[in-house]
Amino acid sequence: MSHVLTLNAGSSSLKFGLFTKDTAPKALATGLIGAIGGAATFQLEDAQGSVLTRGDMSPKDGTTHASSLSAALKELMARFPDADVRAVGHRVVHGGQHHAEPVILDNETVDGLAALTPFAPLHQPHNLAGIHAAQVAFPDAVQVACFDTAFHRNHPFVNDTFAIPRRFYDKGVRRYGFHGLSYDYISGEMERIAPHLLAGRVVVAHLGNGASMCGMLNGRSMASTMGFSALDGLPMGTRSGQLDPGVMLYLLDQEGLSTAEVSDLLYKQSGLLGLSELSNDMRALLASDDPKAREAVEYFVFRIRRELGGLAAALQGLDALVFTGGIGENAREIRARVCAGMAWLGIELDEARNMANETLISSDFSRTRVMVVPTNEELVIARAAVDLV
Amino acid sequence: MSHVLTLNAGSSSLKFGLFTKDTAPKALATGLIGAIGGAATFQLEDAQGSVLTRGDMSPKDGTTHASSLSAALKELMARFPDADVRAVGHRVVHGGQHHAEPVILDNETVDGLAALTPFAPLHQPHNLAGIHAAQVAFPDAVQVACFDTAFHRNHPFVNDTFAIPRRFYDKGVRRYGFHGLSYDYISGEMERIAPHLLAGRVVVAHLGNGASMCGMLNGRSMASTMGFSALDGLPMGTRSGQLDPGVMLYLLDQEGLSTAEVSDLLYKQSGLLGLSELSNDMRALLASDDPKAREAVEYFVFRIRRELGGLAAALQGLDALVFTGGIGENAREIRARVCAGMAWLGIELDEARNMANETLISSDFSRTRVMVVPTNEELVIARAAVDLV
Repeated sequence: MSHVLTLNAGSSSLKFGLFTKDTAPKALATGLIGAIGGAATFQLEDAQGSVLTRGDMSPKDGTTHASSLSAALKELMARFPDADVRAVGHRVVHGGQHHAEPVILDNETVDGLAALTPFAPLHQPHNLAGIHAAQVAFPDAVQVACFDTAFHRNHPFVNDTFAIPRRFYDKGVRRYGFHGLSYDYISGEMERIAPHLLAGRVVVAHLGNGASMCGMLNGRSMASTMGFSALDGLPMGTRSGQLDPGVMLYLLDQEGLSTAEVSDLLYKQSGLLGLSELSNDMRALLASDDPKAREAVEYFVFRIRRELGGLAAALQGLDALVFTGGIGENAREIRARVCAGMAWLGIELDEARNMANETLISSDFSRTRVMVVPTNEELVIARAAVDLV
Repeated sequence: MSHVLTLNAGSSSLKFGLFTKDTAPKALATGLIGAIGGAATFQLEDAQGSVLTRGDMSPKDGTTHASSLSAALKELMARFPDADVRAVGHRVVHGGQHHAEPVILDNETVDGLAALTPFAPLHQPHNLAGIHAAQVAFPDAVQVACFDTAFHRNHPFVNDTFAIPRRFYDKGVRRYGFHGLSYDYISGEMERIAPHLLAGRVVVAHLGNGASMCGMLNGRSMASTMGFSALDGLPMGTRSGQLDPGVMLYLLDQEGLSTAEVSDLLYKQSGLLGLSELSNDMRALLASDDPKAREAVEYFVFRIRRELGGLAAALQGLDALVFTGGIGENAREIRARVCAGMAWLGIELDEARNMANETLISSDFSRTRVMVVPTNEELVIARAAVDLV
């Protein structure tokens, strides 16, 4: 029996999954390495979510992406001694203008991805570190990259450009859009569950610690709330979302912040955390009586609603709204508040269905359908790796 | 007979108007001083738009706002020897958090406006220069300030804040919104023409060389596409409009631009000019066959449509869309393209009415009314000056 491994490398974390190498890959185990470079931790779960191993890594193992992955894989192989990893599928944040599909990684392709680092300086280097670590751990396996930008590569020009001098567009300053693996998965699920809706105008709200929305026509991305970077659009756990460029100039010129400080402010201190001064975790905010926590949630909901209206304009109307991601799949109150007073857009929520977390949560007579569809980005990677090998 | 003068001071220009001091002020003349500090020019028109004087200023007169205004007023007074200016009304871009109404300018108030300069470093100093010039020219007249931000001062918190740490909100980093004098005028006109529409959900699109949109409930501003600065929202003649904060970081960190260069890029080289590489003038773009000109127009239209959807979400629907400003009042093709395929929002344009520039340009059976209402910011200033004196 042969297998594929999926790898999702962040700045100080590595998530991986072991799948059967089938046309319909089955998850066997998932692992998470945290705090790489610090007091690194490791956890391994089976397909049912039962913890197999949990604990601290040795300081030596936890120093780099490569050393921690190597140690974690030893543990994985001890649990699955028959595992035969033929392919490793990587989540890569940025595929640039040209990668509209997953791709087998050779040296030239990896160099091409490295050249995109200026477009995603906080993320692309970690994805590349994950690729190198996997090449060391599995020298004989095929390495495959799946891009968060790929799903959005057919945006019309008006959804791809900013109104700055054209030379920047030509250089690659475009509205790439992200969370493409999730949108790809949801599109596939919609094709299965509700093909006639997918054939129309669908907005998918991927609401997690990162958050964006995607407007699809006939299953293809037409517009996204995320643009050039993972900062734009909706507010997120610690990221600002939409921001007046004049605020950036103010922070730099009047407050005297450096660009590194502004970057840290917008990526790590803003969003729900910045507004609530309490937490980046929606569960904590919903459970809190603090007026600032309430206002942070209110802002989050309001921006989703405003972007929903904007995306409906890009699609010339709306047939279905789909919630996914950690918040989208679980936070009933957020879904209810996003949909309240949306009759003008044909939305009528069924409260009981929403509370029961059903797949269809709009009423039988709602003109626009509202759905909850759990996402599975790892499965998209595993499928792509199987397909390409 | 006594009079009021209105004054609108830009970086290198001064517009002024002479009005009768009546409860319904009547315009007698308007003047424009251009290229102050360079080869300054001067033009004076009567109320019918006939040119009374046109020509170059002497280099000495055209050096500063004060000297050029003084010279221009001599010319005005020669034409209207009986003019008795009791009040001067100033357009001031920024009134900060607290000025929700026009105000009589005393030293303390002027100091307060000067303290807002960090929020509008490119505009506020020129407005203050206009005030000082008028104080010199009319030492006995009452000076009144009318704020472009005032009309928006009742925004709900979610429309007033960004998702960055709260200390910045407390310091005044807010979504002020601009073009308030125009929205104020349109609101008054709607009250006169169509009070039942104004009592509902109205979006006003002020489309000129500067452009923004305002969502009103019952005649009060609830949301605007402009935020902290005059850069945000719609693309403009030379301004970018909405921009991913990640693009700013890219321009600074990866392209090595200074903040002054980024500011110049976004205020003066972007928008319609940057995308078309041809002109910031909508008339020139509409007349051009250049594909880049067409794309610039397409982007302009698309962003208006997307913001219209977003503002409709903020208002929970839409009863009327009102076009104003130079482009909104005159560019039939832009209005037609903004309204095309907007049936989902209840909009059906009447082509003949649109071509004839009628006040009501939607069809008789359009659920949402579409209107064209010419704006008059100077009259708003003149009325405020009369009211306060």
